[in-house]
Amino acid sequence: MGSAAVDLARIRAAAAAGAGVVRETPVLSSRNLSERVGGAVALKAESLQRTGSFKLRGALAKLAALGDAARGGVVAGSAGNHGRAVAYAAREHGVPCEIFMPEQAPVTKVEACRAAGAHVRLTPGGVDDAVAAARAHAADAGLAFVHPFDDADVVAGQGGVGLELAAQVPQLARVIVPLGGGGLASGVAIAVKQLRPDVRVVGVRIAPHPTTIADGIAVKHAGELTRPLLERWVDEVVTVAEDDVAEAMVLLMERSKLVVEGAGAVGVAALLSGVVAPAAEGTTAVVLSGGNVDVGLLASLARRHESIAGRRLVLTTTLPDRPGELGRLLGLIAAAGANLLDVVHLREGVALHVRESAVQLVLETRDRAHAQAVLERLREASYEVATAR
Amino acid sequence: MGSAAVDLARIRAAAAAGAGVVRETPVLSSRNLSERVGGAVALKAESLQRTGSFKLRGALAKLAALGDAARGGVVAGSAGNHGRAVAYAAREHGVPCEIFMPEQAPVTKVEACRAAGAHVRLTPGGVDDAVAAARAHAADAGLAFVHPFDDADVVAGQGGVGLELAAQVPQLARVIVPLGGGGLASGVAIAVKQLRPDVRVVGVRIAPHPTTIADGIAVKHAGELTRPLLERWVDEVVTVAEDDVAEAMVLLMERSKLVVEGAGAVGVAALLSGVVAPAAEGTTAVVLSGGNVDVGLLASLARRHESIAGRRLVLTTTLPDRPGELGRLLGLIAAAGANLLDVVHLREGVALHVRESAVQLVLETRDRAHAQAVLERLREASYEVATAR
Repeated sequence: MGSAAVDLARIRAAAAAGAGVVRETPVLSSRNLSERVGGAVALKAESLQRTGSFKLRGALAKLAALGDAARGGVVAGSAGNHGRAVAYAAREHGVPCEIFMPEQAPVTKVEACRAAGAHVRLTPGGVDDAVAAARAHAADAGLAFVHPFDDADVVAGQGGVGLELAAQVPQLARVIVPLGGGGLASGVAIAVKQLRPDVRVVGVRIAPHPTTIADGIAVKHAGELTRPLLERWVDEVVTVAEDDVAEAMVLLMERSKLVVEGAGAVGVAALLSGVVAPAAEGTTAVVLSGGNVDVGLLASLARRHESIAGRRLVLTTTLPDRPGELGRLLGLIAAAGANLLDVVHLREGVALHVRESAVQLVLETRDRAHAQAVLERLREASYEVATAR
Repeated sequence: MGSAAVDLARIRAAAAAGAGVVRETPVLSSRNLSERVGGAVALKAESLQRTGSFKLRGALAKLAALGDAARGGVVAGSAGNHGRAVAYAAREHGVPCEIFMPEQAPVTKVEACRAAGAHVRLTPGGVDDAVAAARAHAADAGLAFVHPFDDADVVAGQGGVGLELAAQVPQLARVIVPLGGGGLASGVAIAVKQLRPDVRVVGVRIAPHPTTIADGIAVKHAGELTRPLLERWVDEVVTVAEDDVAEAMVLLMERSKLVVEGAGAVGVAALLSGVVAPAAEGTTAVVLSGGNVDVGLLASLARRHESIAGRRLVLTTTLPDRPGELGRLLGLIAAAGANLLDVVHLREGVALHVRESAVQLVLETRDRAHAQAVLERLREASYEVATAR
């Protein structure tokens, strides 16, 4: 796992090794978020890093540390960001690369590794199996294995995010950072606390969930190397819930114009849900650790958000089975200013009288108050209306 | 419309007036886009500007130029970015602000102006009517009217994007910039061409369409001030189609992790569709002018993209009306590795024999090849399958 001590000098050396490839990602203050949570908040948009996540920093640091030992090739196991980062770093160093990925990994993630020139090997089972297969293969073939977090060079590389924060945020008072295996959180904490001992560092975990949207940090345990580093350098660890992460992702898209993956949005979720308070004085920096998220998931999140915000109204009502009745209903809805998106006739699963039919309507409304006004108008016109999200 | 001449000195003065409020937005190189279009491409992420668009630069420049003349208040007409920017700038300058908006403007845009402290006045009709009402009100009440583009101070303010490009992109060879009323395009062109006369500046318009997704640049004509500036300074004007803009927006979300509005994505659309070629040598910079886009629209774009990419397969088939037939069909689909999202029984609108029913299935597939494989498997099992997007 690389030799043990991770200190500021090693983090600076790792940053120097990544210079020219690693992007200094921007810090964006967010007035909207600051007003909502009651303290100055700045977003470290590491989601805009090359390969779409901070993992590139650690991968480049490891490749540099391996030097000639990487010449024969590097191997990693990953379902996502780490694999992509190692593939990219290997291409930069001109060494062969094999990435072991679960068979069920999304095509987009497999393609991203291949596009960076890696040989992808699909393995049965989950991510743990892929990592184990990668490690075994590296040992068999005498190749260098790159662990996703439990490695001093990788931790030192991720620490570059902390160096940048200290340089970019003058009044830095608090840092909120996603916490999975602990590579990013410990690296950032070491850099920040050594440069600015008064800054408080908070790690954010995702609550256990069978199919989390923050899969990037759904790691059961910190590593042998990272656990003591986290204990020493991170001041506090909190946990956020799935739904808060989903809302944070939508807020980041809508307000900050940033696509951030679930694991990258946990810090904003922690602030919004009140699990972490911003610093009373100075700036609270939130690390948005990555932006690799499936477009299909973005669509689901946006739809869910539209319903919650009252911009989608799904209602069911019954109609006398007579010509013109649906037209009359739709006329009322148009007059109420709602836009019809879908009509479904229901013939089963609802209690219907003879000569009666049921319709389910999906309407676009302006907000919750408008949705409520549409419902009231229908009820005034004697429709019995049931609603569902 | 402010006094006439717009030159480098005036652009620099406008930039100085906005300093401390205007964000120097990042330039992000895009390896993926560069490889796709065959030339080095860098993205000027002005979508990350405060208020979500470049319009803040012009609004602040105008407020600074007005000085005491703005003390009584400023007035603007807008359906979106300009209104939000003027509201924000007025708050920064501590002057009252009224924004005239169309009655049908999205609630989110109205709320954004109100959140910045503006008094919003909803007017019947479209944007042109709102602008006319704003101008008339300003004249009646003796207040300062801020035109969205046909004003020398506004043009000078938008030119700040060009100053930053010249400073941020060392090998700048070509600039691709969205073109609507011409404020941004002329300001950028003047700054860039005066600093780097060899750089080619290309303006991109959206093809006329009744309900364009690039509504920010759906302006029929350039202004009296901007038209001659565009003629003098912009080297070439091209037009892109709606569908190309939609694909560009999805690519920017998926690859560059940036939420960019339609008007802001026309430059990338121009490159992807081949309407504009990147420079053979040096870097082509594309201005992403804004990021204010409705979350609901993002959901629609993502869904559309999923269908095109073969990740959604919608198919219709008939089944003998016997117990177990649907179960058998779904078993085959599961065995083919597709994920069932929706089943609808169709009883009308399809030609059915007696004792036959039809089903429409929505499936999640990995890509086009996988969707094709699923279809073949069903056809081998003697299902007659019709597909639709």
